[in-house]
Amino acid sequence: MTTSISIFDTTLRDGTQGEGISLTAEDKLKIALKLDALGVHYIEGGNPGSNSKDIEFFRRAREMNLRAKLTAFGSTRRKNSNCEQDVNLKHLIESKASAATLVGKSWDFHVHTALQTTLEENLAMIYESIAYLKRHQMEAVFDSEHFFDGYKANPEYALSALAKAKEAGADWIVLCDTNGGTLPTEVHEIVTKVCSVIDANIGIHTHNDCELAVANTLAAINAGARQVQGTINGYGERCGNANLCSIIPTLQLKMNYSVVSDEQLKSLTSVSRYVSEIANMVQPVNQPYVGNAAFAHKGGIHVSAILKDSKTYEHISPELVGNKQRVLVSELAGQSNILSKAQELGLDVDAISKSRDIIERVKELEHQGYQFEGADASLELLLRDASGNEESAFTIESFKILCEKSEANMVTEAIVRVRVNGQQVYTIAEGNGPVNALDNALRKSLVQFYPSIADIHLTDYKVRVLDEKDATAAKVRVLIESSDFNDTWSTVGVSSNVIEASWEALLDSIRYALLGKKSSGSLEQWPESVGLSNH
Amino acid sequence: MTTSISIFDTTLRDGTQGEGISLTAEDKLKIALKLDALGVHYIEGGNPGSNSKDIEFFRRAREMNLRAKLTAFGSTRRKNSNCEQDVNLKHLIESKASAATLVGKSWDFHVHTALQTTLEENLAMIYESIAYLKRHQMEAVFDSEHFFDGYKANPEYALSALAKAKEAGADWIVLCDTNGGTLPTEVHEIVTKVCSVIDANIGIHTHNDCELAVANTLAAINAGARQVQGTINGYGERCGNANLCSIIPTLQLKMNYSVVSDEQLKSLTSVSRYVSEIANMVQPVNQPYVGNAAFAHKGGIHVSAILKDSKTYEHISPELVGNKQRVLVSELAGQSNILSKAQELGLDVDAISKSRDIIERVKELEHQGYQFEGADASLELLLRDASGNEESAFTIESFKILCEKSEANMVTEAIVRVRVNGQQVYTIAEGNGPVNALDNALRKSLVQFYPSIADIHLTDYKVRVLDEKDATAAKVRVLIESSDFNDTWSTVGVSSNVIEASWEALLDSIRYALLGKKSSGSLEQWPESVGLSNH
Repeated sequence: MTTSISIFDTTLRDGTQGEGISLTAEDKLKIALKLDALGVHYIEGGNPGSNSKDIEFFRRAREMNLRAKLTAFGSTRRKNSNCEQDVNLKHLIESKASAATLVGKSWDFHVHTALQTTLEENLAMIYESIAYLKRHQMEAVFDSEHFFDGYKANPEYALSALAKAKEAGADWIVLCDTNGGTLPTEVHEIVTKVCSVIDANIGIHTHNDCELAVANTLAAINAGARQVQGTINGYGERCGNANLCSIIPTLQLKMNYSVVSDEQLKSLTSVSRYVSEIANMVQPVNQPYVGNAAFAHKGGIHVSAILKDSKTYEHISPELVGNKQRVLVSELAGQSNILSKAQELGLDVDAISKSRDIIERVKELEHQGYQFEGADASLELLLRDASGNEESAFTIESFKILCEKSEANMVTEAIVRVRVNGQQVYTIAEGNGPVNALDNALRKSLVQFYPSIADIHLTDYKVRVLDEKDATAAKVRVLIESSDFNDTWSTVGVSSNVIEASWEALLDSIRYALLGKKSSGSLEQWPESVGLSNH
Repeated sequence: MTTSISIFDTTLRDGTQGEGISLTAEDKLKIALKLDALGVHYIEGGNPGSNSKDIEFFRRAREMNLRAKLTAFGSTRRKNSNCEQDVNLKHLIESKASAATLVGKSWDFHVHTALQTTLEENLAMIYESIAYLKRHQMEAVFDSEHFFDGYKANPEYALSALAKAKEAGADWIVLCDTNGGTLPTEVHEIVTKVCSVIDANIGIHTHNDCELAVANTLAAINAGARQVQGTINGYGERCGNANLCSIIPTLQLKMNYSVVSDEQLKSLTSVSRYVSEIANMVQPVNQPYVGNAAFAHKGGIHVSAILKDSKTYEHISPELVGNKQRVLVSELAGQSNILSKAQELGLDVDAISKSRDIIERVKELEHQGYQFEGADASLELLLRDASGNEESAFTIESFKILCEKSEANMVTEAIVRVRVNGQQVYTIAEGNGPVNALDNALRKSLVQFYPSIADIHLTDYKVRVLDEKDATAAKVRVLIESSDFNDTWSTVGVSSNVIEASWEALLDSIRYALLGKKSSGSLEQWPESVGLSNH
């Protein structure tokens, strides 16, 4: 019989204290639905006492019938006052959330310096505020702020704060490493002590200032804590809160705790990405468990081994958390990476494996600055050429770019000369920059032959100056991501001229699109040509 | 007397196995210099046996007289072979590095499945390869791959692999959690066991697949390990290696170990940023210790408290690692920063503070994508304009750029029309790209009036696409670093047109140079004009 751990999600409250994160009430409601489906036990939605958009959140969330307990956040009553007159406490009750969290001081330094009150008054603030919540039938969670620093400075006082909360009826006593500076061995020792002297349900709330938030959480669980407070993707003040996307799978898959169902665990990767989209944050590629590269293998030896058995270089099966294995082709690739890629594309693997040239060619291009890892479509074109597929949908004869700036006006035009099925097409187009103009001109010339080109739009454009110390003479690498509503593909170009590098990537993108994009092992037929275009 | 911990930096080897990271030999040499200044003890530069650019790295690095020990990476000899005929081992010797790391199998599963050989042959491979290195007077580091998984599966075999390496003379025995799936309690237990049965210098090499690489490293140190293998910013395969930027300060500031000097520790933030720039990776804003938000306070209560005493919400003083405190309250912080900058420049602070416009202007520009933090010279020009210094050394009337590509030929020319002291100067110049051509044309037009311009050269050129989702229509930020052998300054430009953005940064650079560069509170007089130039 496995032990259950309660997951207390504070993405919508503590998470929003991270730099660059700002969620509307609508954002919070969308995220709350996803969190509920994931199976967290508490959703701390915000602070209705200090934030009117949170009042709206609680009002609308109540109607969503979530399984998780909606929780409102606030602090102990103001000093030298009473609960009935405390506006913030009133808002907590009015939120009609199932539970409320009260943060209160347990570090004497904070009581004196930040609150500027007496140790006794602080204990009264804790006692009375928790009792107030209980009188109003709310589940009460006491967040003991700076508990570990407080315990190190004055253990008796810190413990007395917990005892007061317990006495008043707190349902959970949560020990917070608010400054994020405590070590796992210290957390284990202190939580063990707390569990031995306070008879209560203990929770843990850590911060990542030493990159130890997850470890500190696990140490506390080992010492007897049964609630984990954290956020999706570790969002939060400064270096963030404990990352639930790392904690949940570790507790469940490696420590034999019962947290969420196996099905819910499989949704972890998509929940992580969903929340990062809504929060407009980039999900780090190398994020544990759920990142795009969490199960991506680059070194040739690694790839060769995982093709024999994934357990050689994967600590869990990616599918358990809804992620997948990827093989990266780069300069570090051995033959295995390239062959496996070719196989994936349905190409003639024998032809490729007989040619050591292709591997040398890839390495040589990478040495010049090409990066095929992030440019799958360019790599596919290279492999197709190597396996003998050499037909071309069009050829470029020349292009010209004119930029003219005078006073406040900046005009950019591109002229492109293209040959399709023996016909020459000469086109001019404007753009708001040289690359945008080239893109417009190229597609304008080809769309009459290949109507599907009208659906293609560029969704991402990255420029990297290689060897920046060569300054404006340096080589530049351009990575382009294109999309046609069904499919997305990436291409690369390298040159000391940013226009030429962009051009190369653009051409690859179009060529790839005209392959039909999906690899079927044969090229699609092109439609009849329609005639010359002079504009 | 504090205990020393040896830092073994593998940013240039294991770090490059992370997705999106590709370093040229030149990049590696630049980073090696910074690592050496930081005070790491070993710099693992690459794998000369499988990568020709690493052969170049070791050749050139030898001449740099680094204090750190240059280390070459390879693996134990091929099965059923001998060391003298092993090409990879030969490359290690030829690299003339001080030390060499050999990775060898200690997990029986890997011996059977990945290597497809016998347990005895694997032990022979370990023994003979280490002995071979010792015969060639190299320091030998044995990386025991998958040690923790191997120990859990077959502890006797795993320990025998270590014993063999030790017997052959290995100077360090490093326990690797290659798959990144081990827990800190397990690491502590296993390392304790190893230290009790093997009499050797023990090292630890962890991976971040559970977000526990740092914690596992510290657990190993607690159990007796004395060498830490990791990378700057935690770069590495899949979720990355142990992050030295989190480990070094934690060991030194919280665990009383001796790692680097206090001065060197203060360079940590700048080393982290430097390496991320060279690797073209974005340094996460919330990275522990060194991230831009590591000491950034947003919550109103937090800010109010830290203004009383930083220790209320900071676990260490940011200056110890070269970082700084930031207050994320926009209006308030903005005014202080700007006024303090103006004071620093000796400008009329009253004039500036009376004009709320300048603060709004800076915020508005930052909102559009300008980043004055990395472009001091542009900020100074802005402040000078605001404090009434409005004279101009020259004005631009217009420019034109022509790029023409046909077959293999790419020609780029820029034409610039400039007015200096009432005289119009019309100049054309070539370049190997539009920005290079503009740079050449602009300086060609001005050098006859301002001979000192001949000394200016661009030393750094960075392009960042802001809002990449707008693809080729996205705004671009260009940062330029210029130098004239005495002084170095940075300028910025933003536009949806990369040419225009670069132009803006170039102009600011020249304008700044013609201010005399050093702020004296007054503008320098310009020399007599010399006449028109037609080319």
